[in-house]
Amino acid sequence: MDKAKKHQETASEHKATEQECASASDSTAVMPALNTEEPAASATGALNAALLNPKADIAVLDALENELFALNYAIGEIYSFADVIDPDGATDDRGEALAYLIQKSQEALCAPEIGIVLDRLEANPAILNEKQAAQVKILKRGRAQLVDVPVEEQAALSKLQNESSAVWHKAKLADDWESFEPYLDKIIEAQIRIAGYKNAEKDPYDVWLDEYEHDTDRAFYDTFFSELKDTVVPLLADVVAADQPTERVEGTFGQSRQWALARELVEMEGLDLNRLWIGATEHPFTGGPGRNFVIVTGHVHEDDVLSNVYSILHEGGHALYEQNVDEKLNRTCLCGGSSTGMHEAQSRFFENYIGRSKAFARPLLEIMKRHFPGPLGRLTPNQLYIAVNRVEPSLIRTEADELTYPLHIIVRYEIEQLLFSGEAKASDVPKLWKERYKSYLGVDVSDYQHGPLQDVHWSQGSFGYFPTYALGSAYGAQLKCKMIEDGVDFDGACADGELAPIRAWLGRTIWCHGRSKDPAELIQSACGKPFSAHYFCDYLREKFSSIYRLKA
Amino acid sequence: MDKAKKHQETASEHKATEQECASASDSTAVMPALNTEEPAASATGALNAALLNPKADIAVLDALENELFALNYAIGEIYSFADVIDPDGATDDRGEALAYLIQKSQEALCAPEIGIVLDRLEANPAILNEKQAAQVKILKRGRAQLVDVPVEEQAALSKLQNESSAVWHKAKLADDWESFEPYLDKIIEAQIRIAGYKNAEKDPYDVWLDEYEHDTDRAFYDTFFSELKDTVVPLLADVVAADQPTERVEGTFGQSRQWALARELVEMEGLDLNRLWIGATEHPFTGGPGRNFVIVTGHVHEDDVLSNVYSILHEGGHALYEQNVDEKLNRTCLCGGSSTGMHEAQSRFFENYIGRSKAFARPLLEIMKRHFPGPLGRLTPNQLYIAVNRVEPSLIRTEADELTYPLHIIVRYEIEQLLFSGEAKASDVPKLWKERYKSYLGVDVSDYQHGPLQDVHWSQGSFGYFPTYALGSAYGAQLKCKMIEDGVDFDGACADGELAPIRAWLGRTIWCHGRSKDPAELIQSACGKPFSAHYFCDYLREKFSSIYRLKA
Repeated sequence: MDKAKKHQETASEHKATEQECASASDSTAVMPALNTEEPAASATGALNAALLNPKADIAVLDALENELFALNYAIGEIYSFADVIDPDGATDDRGEALAYLIQKSQEALCAPEIGIVLDRLEANPAILNEKQAAQVKILKRGRAQLVDVPVEEQAALSKLQNESSAVWHKAKLADDWESFEPYLDKIIEAQIRIAGYKNAEKDPYDVWLDEYEHDTDRAFYDTFFSELKDTVVPLLADVVAADQPTERVEGTFGQSRQWALARELVEMEGLDLNRLWIGATEHPFTGGPGRNFVIVTGHVHEDDVLSNVYSILHEGGHALYEQNVDEKLNRTCLCGGSSTGMHEAQSRFFENYIGRSKAFARPLLEIMKRHFPGPLGRLTPNQLYIAVNRVEPSLIRTEADELTYPLHIIVRYEIEQLLFSGEAKASDVPKLWKERYKSYLGVDVSDYQHGPLQDVHWSQGSFGYFPTYALGSAYGAQLKCKMIEDGVDFDGACADGELAPIRAWLGRTIWCHGRSKDPAELIQSACGKPFSAHYFCDYLREKFSSIYRLKA
Repeated sequence: MDKAKKHQETASEHKATEQECASASDSTAVMPALNTEEPAASATGALNAALLNPKADIAVLDALENELFALNYAIGEIYSFADVIDPDGATDDRGEALAYLIQKSQEALCAPEIGIVLDRLEANPAILNEKQAAQVKILKRGRAQLVDVPVEEQAALSKLQNESSAVWHKAKLADDWESFEPYLDKIIEAQIRIAGYKNAEKDPYDVWLDEYEHDTDRAFYDTFFSELKDTVVPLLADVVAADQPTERVEGTFGQSRQWALARELVEMEGLDLNRLWIGATEHPFTGGPGRNFVIVTGHVHEDDVLSNVYSILHEGGHALYEQNVDEKLNRTCLCGGSSTGMHEAQSRFFENYIGRSKAFARPLLEIMKRHFPGPLGRLTPNQLYIAVNRVEPSLIRTEADELTYPLHIIVRYEIEQLLFSGEAKASDVPKLWKERYKSYLGVDVSDYQHGPLQDVHWSQGSFGYFPTYALGSAYGAQLKCKMIEDGVDFDGACADGELAPIRAWLGRTIWCHGRSKDPAELIQSACGKPFSAHYFCDYLREKFSSIYRLKA
């Protein structure tokens, strides 16, 4: 199950249970001594039967999926509630329980007999239906992520990640780069080594890019980001030079009314409330045990109503994806989002393409006014539209507007590449960061907290993750174009606050497939052509040229 | 982990994960073919090592406990949140995941090699410390509960329980005894058969009594209930004949203030808020994944402030027991309450012995008035004391007062005996119920809903459970006497609302031991003598004679 935004904050702990992206070959070639003591209902018992009857391999597949479903259900629930519900005193016991459950799910997938059965099924496509073929593909890929890495190497990395995370937390608070620096070097070293186990032929950074987003590599992202940079950097310069609109939404917005508003927003987005739970956390996320129990959280600031409105629209997009995977894929490895990038495409679709569109400003404001007639009484839809699209180059990625956001990502992508190629060490990062923020965003990085210590990702060894955020936005722009081409009245739906036609198109082309198609396949099948960055570039150019009245 | 009150409502589903009470012998004598493929860190791997080195058996024990801890942590969290948090749509997936996790925990305990190791450890007491010896005892007992029952018999029972529960729910709503009747006969039949597998030598009802409360049987309860009946029936007649006090606590009490009051009450009881989560459910319960994450729920009625006050005091008592098991027993089978009766002793101690005492009325009322100065402004402590101790023979067990409660239990106990002995069939139950309610409580049973269809227990096959409720109250009376004898200023502590001395005594004599001592041992070690019903009888006689000004 995909933890979506949750994954951002604590990527390492849960990563092993996600099978969405992986490296290549399964090198488990050792034939195990078969254990004839096992009952026939278990995976290994069914394996024995399979020696006589090939179709019994399907039973092994089903038993494995059943086991992974149950363990991941438990992991998903325990993990998702950790920051929402658990009292502090639960931390250690929860850690122990989670470690055991994650280990069991990895052991189940990595069992040598499972490798044999998956290989045999792959070699016998005739006995597989479409769903089963996809299961075999995804399970093999998830397995390959794990089995090729020596256990002691993986254990050492976990230990390093834990230490490094703790050091990062303190370092960020104390604005102390030096204490984190050696950990960043060590963690890069470990990630390069581990990438070598996964695929010795491939560039290590490419291994990790592919793991987060299947079939992507530096060549892919270089093209994407170069096109994006060529659009955004000059566009941003024009926007900054233009007259800044001054619309702002101000006031005091009480907690309980903001939550009532949030509930109305997820209903408007079209989430099934019968399979949803909404909670409050410091960092909003989407998680939960599965498609029939999705957890969405927000965070209310009483002086800023828009913060939670857009958090909820964003998480609601993730949640729509999770809830709307075809019911037939439930309780299999196919139930979840295709990739981190494709998940982010859905969240940003609802947050930005719909949520920050001109047409949607009217129904959104109507809902907001129902809950806050006082402070919002005189606000017009156009004022709201301008306010939520104000461009302001800033230091913090998570607070960035739609236009400057990709530049934050490009800075990180370029530095990650330099670190993996050995062209830079951790000690070079602050300087690289400063230079690039100045050059791309025109801002001066004043300290480490608001510089290279702002994100948790690197401290947990999540390299290659950042690019998927920008890619998700770009997927969204292409999907939006195609949906309109296919006859969806996008602006009409937004203007009416009646999003069913949009949901129907996304549900049919993307959501229902779960993990059975990779992101590139989804784009190709939904849009009839491969991914291209120009939809996103065009979108940004048109939208912000219009808002800022730039000459064409 | 003990689900305490939670267990009452849906006993069957979770029962298998509780190892607190069990029948006797472990008949697993088959030597398994050892599986040399297992990694050494696992239980079976360590077993192999044990053939060379007996101390490695300890490693098997530790690995088993670790596995059971993690699985039960997950089961405890998923199960506890089911009615508190889960959206309805989660039901089926949750059921699947729970079934798998419960099966895994049973398989771990029932593995043949585990039987051998536990037997060998038991035969080698020299290598066990006190804690390990208790673990072996409790694990063997829990194992014996499971291994002797044929898998297909257990599966058939689960199916029957599910059907029977569903039928009972509808039957209760429709006030339709006839539809439930055949299920009751079938479920009794199954329970008699299963008791035979567990211990063919023993009376079947005795098998189940022992399973809920170790070392109890009909002889024990016959003595207990006969003494109790001899006290309560005439006492109740005198009370009913006496002038009824008319004190009542009335008003409208808002939700959020009632929850604030509830939080203050659990704090006053002395719960560690850092290891507690409070929620709302239809039926209040205590549950959670373990001692460091205890879940307590209540249910607020806006027209009745006392209902949730006493629910919370009751559940708080269960929660105190769970939280205060010695930390050293955490993550083992010893972490939890000794038995259902001993658990109920703690909850009723805080609900009744403290909560409905004359001395406690003052600090309780002070807290209540802080939250509800309006409706409670003129209430005096004595009026509150009288109001919460009003005796009123009624039809519903869960709404009964302290004096009539045991009579509701005796009715059930007597009918359960007749059903197990074959002297009665399900079709006789309504008549038996009517007669006994008239004879013991003096009330007329008008329908089935308020008669033999009121409780969930029988529909789930929980026979022998009810008696532990009354036994718990009686344990409490004896503990209270001894604590005062030991120098605890019980009334002073209640009057000051400063319960630390009471907690210290219960913590030292009962709570800290977890499951390492059986209930009878706990009473003996805490009180210096075996259990006796007379403390409870004396308590009831003195308390209600005084309130109702009866002649001695």
